[in-house]
Amino acid sequence: MNGLVHALRAALGDAAVLTAPEERIAFERDWRNLHQHPAVCVVLPKTTAELARAVSLCAGAGVAVVAQGGNTGLVAGGVPVAGVPQVVLSLTRMNRIFAPDRVGNTVKVQAGATVQAVQAAAAAAGLMFGVSFGAQGSAQIGGAISTNAGGIQVLAHASMRANVLGLEVVLADGRVWDGLRAVAKDNTGFDLKQIFIGGEGTLGIITGAVLRLLPAARAHAMALVGVADVAGAVRVFQDIRAHAGDSLTMCEFITRAALELGAAQVTAGRLPFAAANYVLTELSSHTPDAPLAALLETALAPALESGIASDAVIAQSERERLALLRLREAVPEGELAEGGAVKHDIAVPIAATARAVADIEHVIATKYKDCRLNIFGHLGDGNLHVNVRPRAGAGLDDLADRKAAITADVEAIAMAYGGSFSAEHGIGQLRLDGMQTHKSSVELELMQKLKHALDPRGIFNPGKVLPQ
Amino acid sequence: MNGLVHALRAALGDAAVLTAPEERIAFERDWRNLHQHPAVCVVLPKTTAELARAVSLCAGAGVAVVAQGGNTGLVAGGVPVAGVPQVVLSLTRMNRIFAPDRVGNTVKVQAGATVQAVQAAAAAAGLMFGVSFGAQGSAQIGGAISTNAGGIQVLAHASMRANVLGLEVVLADGRVWDGLRAVAKDNTGFDLKQIFIGGEGTLGIITGAVLRLLPAARAHAMALVGVADVAGAVRVFQDIRAHAGDSLTMCEFITRAALELGAAQVTAGRLPFAAANYVLTELSSHTPDAPLAALLETALAPALESGIASDAVIAQSERERLALLRLREAVPEGELAEGGAVKHDIAVPIAATARAVADIEHVIATKYKDCRLNIFGHLGDGNLHVNVRPRAGAGLDDLADRKAAITADVEAIAMAYGGSFSAEHGIGQLRLDGMQTHKSSVELELMQKLKHALDPRGIFNPGKVLPQ
Repeated sequence: MNGLVHALRAALGDAAVLTAPEERIAFERDWRNLHQHPAVCVVLPKTTAELARAVSLCAGAGVAVVAQGGNTGLVAGGVPVAGVPQVVLSLTRMNRIFAPDRVGNTVKVQAGATVQAVQAAAAAAGLMFGVSFGAQGSAQIGGAISTNAGGIQVLAHASMRANVLGLEVVLADGRVWDGLRAVAKDNTGFDLKQIFIGGEGTLGIITGAVLRLLPAARAHAMALVGVADVAGAVRVFQDIRAHAGDSLTMCEFITRAALELGAAQVTAGRLPFAAANYVLTELSSHTPDAPLAALLETALAPALESGIASDAVIAQSERERLALLRLREAVPEGELAEGGAVKHDIAVPIAATARAVADIEHVIATKYKDCRLNIFGHLGDGNLHVNVRPRAGAGLDDLADRKAAITADVEAIAMAYGGSFSAEHGIGQLRLDGMQTHKSSVELELMQKLKHALDPRGIFNPGKVLPQ
Repeated sequence: MNGLVHALRAALGDAAVLTAPEERIAFERDWRNLHQHPAVCVVLPKTTAELARAVSLCAGAGVAVVAQGGNTGLVAGGVPVAGVPQVVLSLTRMNRIFAPDRVGNTVKVQAGATVQAVQAAAAAAGLMFGVSFGAQGSAQIGGAISTNAGGIQVLAHASMRANVLGLEVVLADGRVWDGLRAVAKDNTGFDLKQIFIGGEGTLGIITGAVLRLLPAARAHAMALVGVADVAGAVRVFQDIRAHAGDSLTMCEFITRAALELGAAQVTAGRLPFAAANYVLTELSSHTPDAPLAALLETALAPALESGIASDAVIAQSERERLALLRLREAVPEGELAEGGAVKHDIAVPIAATARAVADIEHVIATKYKDCRLNIFGHLGDGNLHVNVRPRAGAGLDDLADRKAAITADVEAIAMAYGGSFSAEHGIGQLRLDGMQTHKSSVELELMQKLKHALDPRGIFNPGKVLPQ
């Protein structure tokens, strides 16, 4: 290993190679603190050529490479695994954002730019970037692309995949594929970027991207709606979509228990109004004077009249709108502050949401009686975070023995409805059991073939995505 | 070959295997009549299992398989090539459309359903399908997915890729990958469907799909705008997008020469008004009373006042709107009726459109003086069809000797601006020279690796997409 470290220092400079344990630790530990294994060293290249050189040196030494962005992933996909010598390759210093093309509505970025910095650059050009999620201040574009990140605007602007026009990728043999195209349409052979998007750094390392930008939204209307149950929430979603169509940019589901976790963080526990469950929805328009609040009122009227919705507030100002949004965004923070949870990220066809949640409530109430459910998520995408919290006062340790069983039960319910056991978080190290359990042998073999074709020696991010 | 035909008949029934030349010919010849080579036979399976069985039998006999949908492609990608024994596998009898899921806004279909039939099924459920193009009455969903088809609504609803949620694919070893998921988000390992979308039948045969449906548009406003030049057209596009944002669902560019070809087909040559070039644009909304015509007027006012736009008409009725649309759609028919053209399908960053067109006009005027340019296409996507017609009165034969040189010149200009030499039509047999010329060795090798991983014996659609 000393030979490799020496060679990396010689190639990239001493300051680009961290070996001291206290310098490495932030790169070795995932942000949920679930996994920590030592890296040979942490390498911080400043250019694609430097990064490619580092990959070549590692490959030559038979040492694996773990690409890391902002390290905000929830499945420990960007940190080392046990038992294999690995170098962490951090993209942090490759954070350049080029001037947006305001005619084509595109922007070229290096992979280490944060999602928030991209949003800011887009906004400065009078545009917007369509992907937005809680960790965007730290999460980097390269990581977001590698994990096909989702978030709260998927309903309107789709996941990361749909917002990428071109990629630059360092391959397992240290060569660079320049696919940095800035056109919306390009059917010239296999669309190679699609392989690396969502590849979680196991097939190549994304070093740059051309992103699609959108006309900025100039009007918003947001409502928090109280509903008795999940079926009512789905009904409210359908009503809003039927009225608002493309204007509907967000439709979240939040149980009262979940909203209380958020409220504990930001409003000293005070909820806007009491309800069993909530829908938080937003309409947006590029037209500044679009009558969105009126549209929302019209859309909500049938549910309020029939009693499907028990109550609703429409934000009357930008301040109120951001306060409602903050309440939703604070749910995961509240959960963490109050002991954490065994987290899940399932999707089901929207029509099956109420049945899936009922099945989950049943299995928790019968098999894990002391646990508390925290369910919230992206109703309009059929994507729910089904988090199982330990009994009051206990920490996550309390669930250590039952964690795998809980996860297997929750995932099985999602799959029984034709859903997904990881809608937006990916596989990383944490969901390998699900891959083994739920994927057909045909599908796993196809994935292995792809891995073998692009990384035959297995140097990229070992122990992630594909079960052994 | 007789042994294979016998085995196919035994497995699928006599009626599913066509061997007589007069029965085969429609499947052997591409619809532009550019390519025709004999198939061993044409097989018409009714189920995925039958199709998989046919693939196994062909693979066992070492005979290649050409999957064919509606055979409306423009690059001869779905018909046999010369010199290799091939069976054509037509999806025509696999045309079932299941009941749309009106909560999830999805529909499951067999690959042989036509695009138009899917649109009709969506409409019957109060929804719409986002992909629309001229050949949709014959083009099949499987072919549209395999070629990542585009069309006139890409600006709003993206190409086929973004409208596919799940796929069923028959693999080269005759096994079936069931990826028929109906959820919007699923980050469980590599997104295998992305490999087959746009794969032109060289990596697997798509037999079924789950498609994304959209809330139906209930209001439209369409305008035909006259502009002096391409730069003016881009300016008008920018103005409309700046005002209309998400409502902008179409923005086409049409030269006067192109519109005259269309007008000759549908209005006895009469144009709505005279101009050097035209922009045809449409706004759409899910809200029936959205004031789209007023929005369009506001958006067009600056260009009309400054003289960038010379004239404009806004359709005053659904009849007028459809008449304008028909005029645009008739351009390729008119071109064919008047001798055809050497066709191209380039994309460039929108900001480079005017320069690219000027370069093309220059090269044609200097190197191919007798030729006539027919340029039209999807301005909002940076995608132009740059078709080079023979001199008046001559047929395509007149360009036979110069065809390759013309194409090389046009493609080189697109690539010089960082564009694409096949934005939506794909590669097939027709664009192999472009692959050889414009793709880096790294990119071609990656594609070859993918091909080898999924179809090691090369039985799927030989002689397409990848240059030898």
